[in-house]
Amino acid sequence: MTALVDRHTVPSPASALVCRNCGAEFPLGAQHACSECWGPLEIGYDAAALARVTHDEIAAGPHSLWRYAGLLPVGQNPATRVDSNTGMTPLIRADRLADELGFTAPLYVKDDSANPTHSFKDRVVSVAITAARELGFSRIACASTGNLANSVAAHAARIGMPSIVFIPADLESAKITQTAIYGGTLVGIEGSYDDVNRLCSELAETDEFENTGFVNVNIRPYYAEGSKTLGYEVAEQLGWRLPGQYVAPMASGSMLTKINKAFKELVAAGLVPASDWRIYGAQSAGCAPIATAFAAGDDVVQPVRPTGIAKSLNIGNPADGPYALDAVRASGGSMAAVDDDEIREGIRLLARTTGVFAETAGGVTVAVLKKLVESGAIDTSIETVVYNTGDGLKTVDAVSEGAHPTAVIKPTIKGMREAGLL
Amino acid sequence: MTALVDRHTVPSPASALVCRNCGAEFPLGAQHACSECWGPLEIGYDAAALARVTHDEIAAGPHSLWRYAGLLPVGQNPATRVDSNTGMTPLIRADRLADELGFTAPLYVKDDSANPTHSFKDRVVSVAITAARELGFSRIACASTGNLANSVAAHAARIGMPSIVFIPADLESAKITQTAIYGGTLVGIEGSYDDVNRLCSELAETDEFENTGFVNVNIRPYYAEGSKTLGYEVAEQLGWRLPGQYVAPMASGSMLTKINKAFKELVAAGLVPASDWRIYGAQSAGCAPIATAFAAGDDVVQPVRPTGIAKSLNIGNPADGPYALDAVRASGGSMAAVDDDEIREGIRLLARTTGVFAETAGGVTVAVLKKLVESGAIDTSIETVVYNTGDGLKTVDAVSEGAHPTAVIKPTIKGMREAGLL
Repeated sequence: MTALVDRHTVPSPASALVCRNCGAEFPLGAQHACSECWGPLEIGYDAAALARVTHDEIAAGPHSLWRYAGLLPVGQNPATRVDSNTGMTPLIRADRLADELGFTAPLYVKDDSANPTHSFKDRVVSVAITAARELGFSRIACASTGNLANSVAAHAARIGMPSIVFIPADLESAKITQTAIYGGTLVGIEGSYDDVNRLCSELAETDEFENTGFVNVNIRPYYAEGSKTLGYEVAEQLGWRLPGQYVAPMASGSMLTKINKAFKELVAAGLVPASDWRIYGAQSAGCAPIATAFAAGDDVVQPVRPTGIAKSLNIGNPADGPYALDAVRASGGSMAAVDDDEIREGIRLLARTTGVFAETAGGVTVAVLKKLVESGAIDTSIETVVYNTGDGLKTVDAVSEGAHPTAVIKPTIKGMREAGLL
Repeated sequence: MTALVDRHTVPSPASALVCRNCGAEFPLGAQHACSECWGPLEIGYDAAALARVTHDEIAAGPHSLWRYAGLLPVGQNPATRVDSNTGMTPLIRADRLADELGFTAPLYVKDDSANPTHSFKDRVVSVAITAARELGFSRIACASTGNLANSVAAHAARIGMPSIVFIPADLESAKITQTAIYGGTLVGIEGSYDDVNRLCSELAETDEFENTGFVNVNIRPYYAEGSKTLGYEVAEQLGWRLPGQYVAPMASGSMLTKINKAFKELVAAGLVPASDWRIYGAQSAGCAPIATAFAAGDDVVQPVRPTGIAKSLNIGNPADGPYALDAVRASGGSMAAVDDDEIREGIRLLARTTGVFAETAGGVTVAVLKKLVESGAIDTSIETVVYNTGDGLKTVDAVSEGAHPTAVIKPTIKGMREAGLL
């Protein structure tokens, strides 16, 4: 048991903003695009600082993603971090799902519907709103397909920071209610998510929004790092080792790549033994620009106009698409897309075999897993983790047709007999 | 089907089924009514066994309610317990809510929407389905106002046990979908919850249901003990001491009394210092039989026909009503009821001050807290815990009216200006 560090006195392990395109480095701050080549920036770390993090230090931390503060760009000081009890979601051993799909190796579901607003977005928002406070912003904002909206509004309400959330006006009604209820400003946009995102990029440059951290625009490099915790947690929950395969849904493509980044960091820091892993990306047929590029062997992702029920994945022009392609190809993994009927069946399959009710994005991931097994693209003899990123209560309408009582009867034994239940 | 199976680790601390009415004792088994006086049975414990439980033993347990296995009637053997990652839900310091209500002492929200099916019912079902397995039942069933239905169906799916769930046919659609999705048998009853409950009591006596554990009928004594963990967790999360006041919603009245039982056990076992606490019970005006009896100074609870939006609390003939009255009166606490508009305002108040989106039952509890403060019935200078027992996504319709975007605009700077947002 080595001595635990006092995080109050330990600086952030983040060292710079690094261009993912040309490698140029910039000082840490509220910047998201490279001023040399306009490529996207991400957080670079001091490898020596990461290597000083220990299992004991992590285990002694809170039962939330902030136990990994030593591997994140912000939130080292417990007094400034925003801890909404996000993270440390269950890693469920899904033996009954494994049996149905023919897996001989263990199959796990990492269930992020257990987060406070019931999607993985609580991870990125916890990190982003902490970054916003540390960077001196007094208002928080986002462009969202729904789950991010819920999470930003809830986190802002928790700490009493004003929020302004932008969504496509045609979102699922539950997601609109779940955002509006927290009392921030909610702006419906007559257009697609990509229209919403473009408007936010414009607004972030205005004087009126100078005080505002747009979590997925001007503070996106910090925000995106929150997804790394999906990787750290799986490794810790497996007893500090990595799974041989993982399957994750893709909207912008960021989350899938950040799990990969987390795994690499853990190996480099000596926190897990070196091992190989394959990455599998899931999209819905209604919005599959990355999976389409993968199948065609292209490096360029052609934007599409999204359709279909998996609205939280409906990003037609995915910012991290090329990086997701690179990560999946380099790992020897694959991608697939599934249609709306397959998505609904994926939701039902997961629910009846594991007791986990997933939103449409989770249905996409489970249905893609099934498709990958059927095509032989994924190895059923290798330990595999499937990421469920959101809760079924957010997209109830997608499966409410057909999810009726077996029978409706009078409250009598006779009623039971007439319905054939006795 | 009477004797419990052997457990090969620590024996259960449960010693008998004890009549809450006449005190008669019976061997542990699947029995819920006293054969002497027909009073309800509850679990009695060996006080010496409870006193052997230590803080260290609990801290070394899983991050779920099963860390308290030494204080529960079943589940001592990790191999037979059903662990759905229920419990250890956040105890949220609600400073902004405290400020709005004028609390000078700390105010906490115990947020059970963080459970796997997003209500406190996962606690009682985790214990009940474990008891069902230990007692040799091969099917699980329940009468439910919705949240219990969700939880029973999900737990059964997790372990592959057949389930049959009975609900009033007019439940919120999200709760029907969230139950049907898990694939068990779901029976809608043309009648009230009390009609559903009566039918289940009849069915539990039939030959066809001899293999079936009805969680809130024939194995109710085990089931009800799950609510004790709401008390244990608050004590542990406060650093092993008790709060001075707690506010809990009442449907059957069971949960409120079990938190009280848990606090008493912790004191008796030497796990917390002895202290006083006052208990406050919350009902909706549409179904307030217990609060009405309290206000009238009656010992007898007169059944009512439930109405109103807080459907998960709509039990018109509450089995534990008299025990809830006793517990609240003995503690020096109080009860109150709130109407549907106050419930909606309670949901909004909690959401905008804490980031927690509660179902209607949580709105009842927060609105009652507000009413108790206004009437002076609760002391704002004493540390207080408010129990939120379910998630707002389960009763979205209750607040969707009025929870719209602030504005709906075109995706342009001009659109922002025209809406007065820039």
